Amino acid sequence: MEQLKIGIIGAGRIGKIHAENIARFIPQAKLEGIADIKLRAEQEAWAKNLGARIVSGDPEDILKDPSIEAIIICSSTDTHADFVIAAAAAKKQIFCEKPVDLSVPKVKRALEAAGKAGVKLQIGFNRRFDHNFARIRQYTLAGDIGQVQIVKITSRDPEPPPPAYVAVSGGIFIDMMIHDFDMARFQAGSDITEVYAAGAVLVDPEIGKAGDVDTALVTLRFANGAIGVIDNSRKAVYGYDQRVEVFGSGGAARAENDTANTVTLANGKGVTGEKPLYFFLQRYTQAFIDEMVSFIDAVKNGKPVVVTGEDGLEDMYAALAAGKSLKEKRPVGLEEIRKEY
Amino acid sequence: MEQLKIGIIGAGRIGKIHAENIARFIPQAKLEGIADIKLRAEQEAWAKNLGARIVSGDPEDILKDPSIEAIIICSSTDTHADFVIAAAAAKKQIFCEKPVDLSVPKVKRALEAAGKAGVKLQIGFNRRFDHNFARIRQYTLAGDIGQVQIVKITSRDPEPPPPAYVAVSGGIFIDMMIHDFDMARFQAGSDITEVYAAGAVLVDPEIGKAGDVDTALVTLRFANGAIGVIDNSRKAVYGYDQRVEVFGSGGAARAENDTANTVTLANGKGVTGEKPLYFFLQRYTQAFIDEMVSFIDAVKNGKPVVVTGEDGLEDMYAALAAGKSLKEKRPVGLEEIRKEY
Amino acid sequence: MEQLKIGIIGAGRIGKIHAENIARFIPQAKLEGIADIKLRAEQEAWAKNLGARIVSGDPEDILKDPSIEAIIICSSTDTHADFVIAAAAAKKQIFCEKPVDLSVPKVKRALEAAGKAGVKLQIGFNRRFDHNFARIRQYTLAGDIGQVQIVKITSRDPEPPPPAYVAVSGGIFIDMMIHDFDMARFQAGSDITEVYAAGAVLVDPEIGKAGDVDTALVTLRFANGAIGVIDNSRKAVYGYDQRVEVFGSGGAARAENDTANTVTLANGKGVTGEKPLYFFLQRYTQAFIDEMVSFIDAVKNGKPVVVTGEDGLEDMYAALAAGKSLKEKRPVGLEEIRKEY
Amino acid sequence: MEQLKIGIIGAGRIGKIHAENIARFIPQAKLEGIADIKLRAEQEAWAKNLGARIVSGDPEDILKDPSIEAIIICSSTDTHADFVIAAAAAKKQIFCEKPVDLSVPKVKRALEAAGKAGVKLQIGFNRRFDHNFARIRQYTLAGDIGQVQIVKITSRDPEPPPPAYVAVSGGIFIDMMIHDFDMARFQAGSDITEVYAAGAVLVDPEIGKAGDVDTALVTLRFANGAIGVIDNSRKAVYGYDQRVEVFGSGGAARAENDTANTVTLANGKGVTGEKPLYFFLQRYTQAFIDEMVSFIDAVKNGKPVVVTGEDGLEDMYAALAAGKSLKEKRPVGLEEIRKEY
Repeated sequence: MEQLKIGIIGAGRIGKIHAENIARFIPQAKLEGIADIKLRAEQEAWAKNLGARIVSGDPEDILKDPSIEAIIICSSTDTHADFVIAAAAAKKQIFCEKPVDLSVPKVKRALEAAGKAGVKLQIGFNRRFDHNFARIRQYTLAGDIGQVQIVKITSRDPEPPPPAYVAVSGGIFIDMMIHDFDMARFQAGSDITEVYAAGAVLVDPEIGKAGDVDTALVTLRFANGAIGVIDNSRKAVYGYDQRVEVFGSGGAARAENDTANTVTLANGKGVTGEKPLYFFLQRYTQAFIDEMVSFIDAVKNGKPVVVTGEDGLEDMYAALAAGKSLKEKRPVGLEEIRKEY
Repeated sequence: MEQLKIGIIGAGRIGKIHAENIARFIPQAKLEGIADIKLRAEQEAWAKNLGARIVSGDPEDILKDPSIEAIIICSSTDTHADFVIAAAAAKKQIFCEKPVDLSVPKVKRALEAAGKAGVKLQIGFNRRFDHNFARIRQYTLAGDIGQVQIVKITSRDPEPPPPAYVAVSGGIFIDMMIHDFDMARFQAGSDITEVYAAGAVLVDPEIGKAGDVDTALVTLRFANGAIGVIDNSRKAVYGYDQRVEVFGSGGAARAENDTANTVTLANGKGVTGEKPLYFFLQRYTQAFIDEMVSFIDAVKNGKPVVVTGEDGLEDMYAALAAGKSLKEKRPVGLEEIRKEY
Repeated sequence: MEQLKIGIIGAGRIGKIHAENIARFIPQAKLEGIADIKLRAEQEAWAKNLGARIVSGDPEDILKDPSIEAIIICSSTDTHADFVIAAAAAKKQIFCEKPVDLSVPKVKRALEAAGKAGVKLQIGFNRRFDHNFARIRQYTLAGDIGQVQIVKITSRDPEPPPPAYVAVSGGIFIDMMIHDFDMARFQAGSDITEVYAAGAVLVDPEIGKAGDVDTALVTLRFANGAIGVIDNSRKAVYGYDQRVEVFGSGGAARAENDTANTVTLANGKGVTGEKPLYFFLQRYTQAFIDEMVSFIDAVKNGKPVVVTGEDGLEDMYAALAAGKSLKEKRPVGLEEIRKEY
Repeated sequence: MEQLKIGIIGAGRIGKIHAENIARFIPQAKLEGIADIKLRAEQEAWAKNLGARIVSGDPEDILKDPSIEAIIICSSTDTHADFVIAAAAAKKQIFCEKPVDLSVPKVKRALEAAGKAGVKLQIGFNRRFDHNFARIRQYTLAGDIGQVQIVKITSRDPEPPPPAYVAVSGGIFIDMMIHDFDMARFQAGSDITEVYAAGAVLVDPEIGKAGDVDTALVTLRFANGAIGVIDNSRKAVYGYDQRVEVFGSGGAARAENDTANTVTLANGKGVTGEKPLYFFLQRYTQAFIDEMVSFIDAVKNGKPVVVTGEDGLEDMYAALAAGKSLKEKRPVGLEEIRKEY
């Protein structure tokens, strides 16, 4: 089997996950190089230990290497678009972590670059590959749900981020709910046409002072006529709450949370089961692998990627519309956002 | 034990349920009389068989009977308000089926009459007495959920009503979702201040022709800062879907559907459990009894009723606001509706 | 509709349940009379209030009344057989609470009397009518489970009986597990041929001093080749535990416990649901009604009863065999027990 | 971190699993060598690819290598004991797949060799490390279950093995239920003192012709007074059924099957969830890793191993007793078996 030769830019948390997944679990690919502009000694040791041929503080070493066929961009968000453009120029296949950029024009330029270069561009919305949510979509595609009518997504974090992070994150819709907009579009099999956002500061007043909300409920209209709702909270005391329900003319499919085990304890107080898995690293462990396997398959076998750059852009429009809706207290059509750019 | 003497006006479906419940299950009350302006022979036989002393085609026979202490109004909706006023004039305690009327001014007059007469007035929002939903509220009141932040209600019927009914029903918000507005206010422990409604005709085009929607998703804001969402569908192929989730700073409580049994069948296809109980008569059997027990307790022991006339009015404001929101495609504050009257 | 005229002998706990069920829920029957040899004033008032024409301290008043068609025997166990014989002599249809007697010869005489008189005799093994367990049997009869191979029954009480009761109860196999032997035979669709009993005193040493065990595990062999196991405990701290699993060549069906509601509470400790319903009165409320409806249907429509006197006898053989197995520390064939009588 | 240097003898299915787990997931250990007496070319390539320094057709190359500290024995069952003895002679720490041998004297000699050499010997009863079953044991050890009274184990395979395999496997108790005897002892926290076995040929007559049963139900008595039951079937059409329930004076803990996802599909037929994970490779993936991590931890940190050679011997006594019980149709004490050797 010919292995796809991969270079990774960015050796932070998510870069490490992808590197280790490729090295351990994905025999279809070979980790050729890892570059990070702030490469620390222990990262260097770690990368070498994983068998990377190129370990560098300069991403150019990855981009210009002729044997590397695909680039995984895991650097800081503000550098994503530039690396996409550079990788496209180098005719590399591209997997880019979400979001491509916080600026729509920059996202567009990146997408355009990849398009013109004729290379694939997959965005890191890993939840589409989750065993639960993918199963729901399979039911829908198999006709078991009939015409999709209502999509409901519950997405709550176990702990709020520090208010300092919130201030630069782009806000709850860009930072957190963007995953759910992507999930909603995936499950509905349709783009979002309009959103209405209700939000509140109920978890941490500091988040409010930073100009954001920590609790939000967004109504969605889809192009295919379905409607949907997403609820986000920055803090669920019982842990990471990730559930999806798709209701249609022929049935409904629901995914419950994952837990560490199936054990229940019955005593005088009731029958108690485990809490959900703690957070996204525990919850989406396999999805991180599966999105990469899917990307590699798309590249090697000439298939379309499952999450395109256009998906990333559409998700961002939804997030921007939600922000505007919250601010202006009215439903906002995505066409209105699209026209702004 | 002194039994509360009760007369029932209206011997249709819901009147029969209340009559039989009192006769069979509620020893604290005595069914003294039943009147229906279109009393049929078999209804007369049935009523006598239940031990009713007065069985009449004239509600006046109930209203003027000096021994009857409480009146249960189960007649057609357009007569509710007048019977409330008449019962108040006769100093009877009043239980009135929902809605009091489709006209807000008439509702107000009825409430005013009951208030001036100093009689109790309970509205038939029986779901507050449901074993599941009441349990959630108990958790909240016990502090197990902390501050309520998000209320989510799923409420879907197994079959749509005939389009002819839809045309005179007041529409999905007045006819169907009004139960959920009441549930939302009950679970939030707070009034609704604003709604935003998304709706669609996805079940039956005839419902659309009748000027209504059959699928709706309404976002709620509550006076206490919480937010909420209700989704309604006129048709869930798997049956009556009645679920509530309350999420708060200290935890979350969820009620699943009721089923006829707990059996699962495992075979090569999966592990299959029963569908939900078919419809409201099966699902809320005990709640119909318990709301009546609660009313009788309030009357006999001088307690406040659990669902007041003002609750009924607030629920109606929410329904009217939802209708306006859907029509005008904007969030509508309930204050705006209140001011219209 | 012609109502079946019923007389009840014995106005204790179970007699009251049957009387009230007939009066309230079973329009196919009429409660004609109630007799109890120790009739107290409040029982008399209660019986008259239920509409019984005959209320007496002498069961003969029931047995000799020509209009009464069926007798329900709810008196103390040691009088069951004699009342069966007397009722048979009076050509009454008979429903007799379990067990018919603790003495096999007396049971045989009672069965013989009913058989010769040509009257029906149903034994009060109400669990066959339970919504969960009946559903499992339906699956089996519908072929969904294939050939039954393993039957597993969990049956645990919330509280042990007083040791004084244990001493006269006949022991755990006769007093408690006999219900499970009947359930096992019902679910296997086959008689038990051999049992092996393991038992222990783990709940209350006083039960051991009374010569009984409080924890028992009995292996079953059925005539059709299936095997099974029953486990009993006199005390489950989480409440009444009543579960059945039937495993076969085509699938498996399992019934979980019933709970008062479907609500779960998620918090930092886990996700907690309700305990099982407390005890048999709460758990088998509907089954007590349904067994009576079934008996009345059998009588009125000439159908065989669902639980025959022979069933009762077979269940007793199994219980006696289990007792012998425990004592003699060996598997005991039921044929060995049958030959003793 | 100093890595434990490991050599593996046997490159079949289970040897491959351990080799890959060590190479990929267990940084605390280093895979130094792999030997298989029938080493094929593709195995050689695979082993080298995993980074093994020694890849050989001669286990002696592993045993005599001075740098290798621990040996994992994954060869055919009949060679286990000899390799244990050889490894002990070479002062290697030992992990041996189950069973050590089908002959008790040979097992004893192997245990004695390891004991005299002062090396650790862990047996491959991986289910003790399963996330579900380990969680139950944690509850028990934390006191949440009180005194253990009843242990129930359901263990059913998705497909029967070929009859030819059955003939040489040692039979259902040695080949299949031995895992459950070990689980029972683990959960009870006590040795088994007596067993009674009921068995039947219900799945495949060929298994019966091979002198074995395919369906079995074994009652257990434990030294601490608890009782238990294991049921085995060689074929559950719905898949691998692995459940444990521990009931005690303070509560009960139950583990349900694992499934590939949490999704349910509701439609007109009911609410259907996934089947259990297919078989032990899918079900116990993580347990295979965790048992190895535990072994390495025991070796490196001087802790006792979790599954000792004596555990393996006790489990075998239980299996032999069950076989004798089935044959002689009587309960068999383990002391009786122990005395035979």
